[in-house]
Amino acid sequence: MTITTVGLDADDTLWHNETIFRLTQARFLDLLGDHDNALIEARLAEVERRNLRLYGYGIKGFTLSMIETAMELCEGEPPPGVLREILAAGREMIAHPVETLPGVDEALHRLSEQYRLVLVTKGDLLDQERKLAASGLGDLFAAVEIVSEKDRGTYDRVFARHGTGAQEAVMAGNSVKSDVIPAIEAGAFAVHIPYHVTWAHEIAEPPVDHPRFGLLDSITHLPAWIAERAQA
Amino acid sequence: MTITTVGLDADDTLWHNETIFRLTQARFLDLLGDHDNALIEARLAEVERRNLRLYGYGIKGFTLSMIETAMELCEGEPPPGVLREILAAGREMIAHPVETLPGVDEALHRLSEQYRLVLVTKGDLLDQERKLAASGLGDLFAAVEIVSEKDRGTYDRVFARHGTGAQEAVMAGNSVKSDVIPAIEAGAFAVHIPYHVTWAHEIAEPPVDHPRFGLLDSITHLPAWIAERAQA
Repeated sequence: MTITTVGLDADDTLWHNETIFRLTQARFLDLLGDHDNALIEARLAEVERRNLRLYGYGIKGFTLSMIETAMELCEGEPPPGVLREILAAGREMIAHPVETLPGVDEALHRLSEQYRLVLVTKGDLLDQERKLAASGLGDLFAAVEIVSEKDRGTYDRVFARHGTGAQEAVMAGNSVKSDVIPAIEAGAFAVHIPYHVTWAHEIAEPPVDHPRFGLLDSITHLPAWIAERAQA
Repeated sequence: MTITTVGLDADDTLWHNETIFRLTQARFLDLLGDHDNALIEARLAEVERRNLRLYGYGIKGFTLSMIETAMELCEGEPPPGVLREILAAGREMIAHPVETLPGVDEALHRLSEQYRLVLVTKGDLLDQERKLAASGLGDLFAAVEIVSEKDRGTYDRVFARHGTGAQEAVMAGNSVKSDVIPAIEAGAFAVHIPYHVTWAHEIAEPPVDHPRFGLLDSITHLPAWIAERAQA
């Protein structure tokens, strides 16, 4: 089996992301302390879902959804300071330092010696470029694709453009829904590397019986996993 | 002179954009009618400038800046309904129908018969993809590059990747600062096609005496302008 190209997701695969959202969400719950936590969380999730089609993924859309939720819960008149705090929390998320996950640096260096690495990530263009630059990993990638949606067509296109087609590619990431299922549909190998928390909108069942599917508890094991397939 | 590739800006070059921002801004002034218009505009421009580094270009960042401005002007307690109206205005901007500028359709069809067309645009990834799809022009482009900044390096990269280098490319757009100056620095031809309003942050002096610079009052004249250079 020939493998030429390795696609990697970014948020929660290479560096922490969802934890930063969760911390901000905890701060949001505190701000609206007069309301029940479960109610606030349910309402925020509903507002996010409603806005996803318009706002897409990323911090700015999340900030707007927090503001909208606060307005709804407080009948249009949130206590003084709440909205200012939400705006500040959003800005702090954007400016948050990038913290790569354990083993990422070494695994990517090893992989980049043998394969073409392609970053394939959703989210805000400016945010993702900033995080990649701050991570110091930018030079290891032959290409960076920041996309608005990850479906089968995305992987067809990305691996055709930057590699030798999906058949000779591996996609690795923390989301079964975005990184695994559509990559396998495109004909690639796909490796699920779970992160300890997953955004509710990204949850899906992994295709555990598929011959091209793998599950790893750390990116540290990815070079060996790929080497085994390449020798098969 | 060989010309193989034509780069085109999107907002206010292919379709209306700034007018939609201006209409929303007029609505914003109405909402804060207790304050002086000039004061509101100055404050909003200041907040936008301050946030540009974090939010980048696009509607979501503009919406957040309008909210922040309203909070500042009303000392943290804007009148009921104001923030809801701002959120609604932002969503309506995103969902606004795409209206191509006069002559765009015909000019792009003619250009696409002879040159590789590349869309080169700043702004929010999801917004720009949505607008391109809605414009019906997507099939005319060999490539689409949605970038976070337009500098010399951007044009070097884009015309190397999707064409035969900047020396054999023309960039056309409404912004002297983003579409003209850096494209000429990269060695390309650059054509300024002014739009009737320009965002304050995009204003710059055109390089009127540069041999690779052109000024056209409509995209309709672009095919002929390029044909003249190609024959020279």
